Amino acid sequence: MRIVAVIGAGIAGAPLRRQAEEVGRRLAHAGVVVLTGGRGGVMEAASRGAKKAGGLVVALVPEGRANPYVDIVIPTHMGDARNVLIANTAGAFVAIGGAYGTLSEIAFALKRRKRVVGLGSWRIPGMISAKTPAEAVRKALTG
Amino acid sequence: MRIVAVIGAGIAGAPLRRQAEEVGRRLAHAGVVVLTGGRGGVMEAASRGAKKAGGLVVALVPEGRANPYVDIVIPTHMGDARNVLIANTAGAFVAIGGAYGTLSEIAFALKRRKRVVGLGSWRIPGMISAKTPAEAVRKALTG
Amino acid sequence: MRIVAVIGAGIAGAPLRRQAEEVGRRLAHAGVVVLTGGRGGVMEAASRGAKKAGGLVVALVPEGRANPYVDIVIPTHMGDARNVLIANTAGAFVAIGGAYGTLSEIAFALKRRKRVVGLGSWRIPGMISAKTPAEAVRKALTG
Amino acid sequence: MRIVAVIGAGIAGAPLRRQAEEVGRRLAHAGVVVLTGGRGGVMEAASRGAKKAGGLVVALVPEGRANPYVDIVIPTHMGDARNVLIANTAGAFVAIGGAYGTLSEIAFALKRRKRVVGLGSWRIPGMISAKTPAEAVRKALTG
Repeated sequence: MRIVAVIGAGIAGAPLRRQAEEVGRRLAHAGVVVLTGGRGGVMEAASRGAKKAGGLVVALVPEGRANPYVDIVIPTHMGDARNVLIANTAGAFVAIGGAYGTLSEIAFALKRRKRVVGLGSWRIPGMISAKTPAEAVRKALTG
Repeated sequence: MRIVAVIGAGIAGAPLRRQAEEVGRRLAHAGVVVLTGGRGGVMEAASRGAKKAGGLVVALVPEGRANPYVDIVIPTHMGDARNVLIANTAGAFVAIGGAYGTLSEIAFALKRRKRVVGLGSWRIPGMISAKTPAEAVRKALTG
Repeated sequence: MRIVAVIGAGIAGAPLRRQAEEVGRRLAHAGVVVLTGGRGGVMEAASRGAKKAGGLVVALVPEGRANPYVDIVIPTHMGDARNVLIANTAGAFVAIGGAYGTLSEIAFALKRRKRVVGLGSWRIPGMISAKTPAEAVRKALTG
Repeated sequence: MRIVAVIGAGIAGAPLRRQAEEVGRRLAHAGVVVLTGGRGGVMEAASRGAKKAGGLVVALVPEGRANPYVDIVIPTHMGDARNVLIANTAGAFVAIGGAYGTLSEIAFALKRRKRVVGLGSWRIPGMISAKTPAEAVRKALTG
C-alpha cells in the first residue's frame, strides 16, 4: 500500500490543524495510507482527517500514547529515532509548519531523494512548496 | 486494532512453514492484524496465510525488501533493533521454531509481560507452550 | 581498543555485585575497555571495579542518567534497542545473573557468533560457563 | 568526560578536510573527547587531527567499518538513527560543510538546545557561525 507521511509540530494552532486535517482527508480519499508520528497538533489533525474519511492511519510513536485516530500504533520507545523510521517508511511527505523535529524528518526524506512538499513549513533546497492543502496533496502524489 | 506477532526463523522447512501459514490464517480470521519481521521462512508463511484469509499484514523489516504478502511495510534499516520494535508493537506473540533472533524477541516480549506462545520453539520460563497452530492462536488471543 | 561488555540486572544483591566488581577490575587490568548498559546493579559494580583499577568505562544508557563510574556516556534514549548496540559494540561478553533484558543481549551476542561467558546467568546453547570472576574474565579474553 | 561532535559530509574536498583536522586537533588539545560518525571526509579528518594530538576519539558508525583514527568504535548498524545517537551524546557540535545527513544532526542538536557552531555549513536559526577552526572550537567550548 502506498504511504504518505504528514509531518509537523505536536502543538499547533487552529489554522495549521485545519490544513493538516484537510491534507489527511484528501490523502485518504486518494486511497493512500497516512503515516504520522502519532502525537498531537498537526499529527493528530491529519490522522483525524484521514480517519473520518475512512482511511487507514499508521503511527510511529516516539514514546507514550498515540492520538485516538490511529489504526496501527507502533510504539517505538526510541525518541527521535522514530523520525528516521518515518523517513524510511513513507514514499512522500507533506510538512505542515514544524520546528526542529520536523526539520530532521525533512532532511532524512530529502537524503532519500523522496518528495517533500512544504505547507507553511521550512524552506530547504530540494523541497517543493505548496500554498493550499489541495495543492500539497496533489504535489505529494505526483511522480 | 489488535496486533499479534508471528516470530521465527527467516529460513524454515516445510513443516514449520505450514504451521506458520495456519497460524497466520487463524489470526486473520480472528480479526487481528498480523505483524512479522517481513522476511522469508516463518515470517513469509504467516504473512501469506493471513493475506490469503483477507487479513491485514504489517512488517517491520530489518533491511532489504519485505516478502510479497505484506500490506504495510516499515523498512527500519536498523538491523536487530527491529526486534525491539516488534516486541513493543504486538500485544501477543506466537513463536514458531526460531534461533537466536527469535530468542531475543521472546526475551523482549516477556520483559514487557506480554503473552508468548511457543510452537516447537525455545522453552524459556514465562512462555506458554502449544502443540498445534489452533492451540497456539487460541492461547495467544486469550487474556 | 578491545571492548568487553559486562551484562546483568540493574538491581542485584551483594554477591552478584561483588562478582561484577571483580570482573570489572580484572578486565581493566587486562587493558580492555569495559562496556555496560550504564545502570545500577551488575552494571554499576562492574563499572566501579574497572574505574578503580584505572580502566576506561563506556556506557550505552537506555534513558536517564548513567551510574557515576562511567567515562564515556552514550545516552541512547532508545530503550531496549541499546541492547542491540551493546551486542554490536563488544567483542566478548560476561553475563552475571540477569533477567529477560540480559537474555536478549545474550541472544544478540550469540547471533553475532561472539563469545559469551555466563557467571550464574542464563544457560543458553552456545554460551560458555564459568564458576568464578577470574575464570569468566580468562574465558572472555581467550580466542 | 566532555564530548564534542564534529559533523559533516563523508566525502569532502581538501579545504574542508584541513579545517576538520584543525578542529579535531584543537578539541583534543582542549581535553575533550571527539565524537564523529566514524566515516570518511570531515569525520575522518577530525578524527585524525584529534588522534595525532593525543586525544580520545569515539565513533558512532551507521554500518560498515570506521576510519582508522577511532579509539572506541560503536557499530550501530542503525543507518541514520546513529545521527540521533550523536545528537544525544555530544554536549556541543561543530558542523563543517555537510549535506542532508548533517542537517538532520543539526536539527536534533538544536532541538536539544545544544550549541551548534557552523563552519561553512547550513545556516539554520539557532546555529552559531564561525569563520575559522579556532573560532569554531572556541565557540563550541563556550557556555
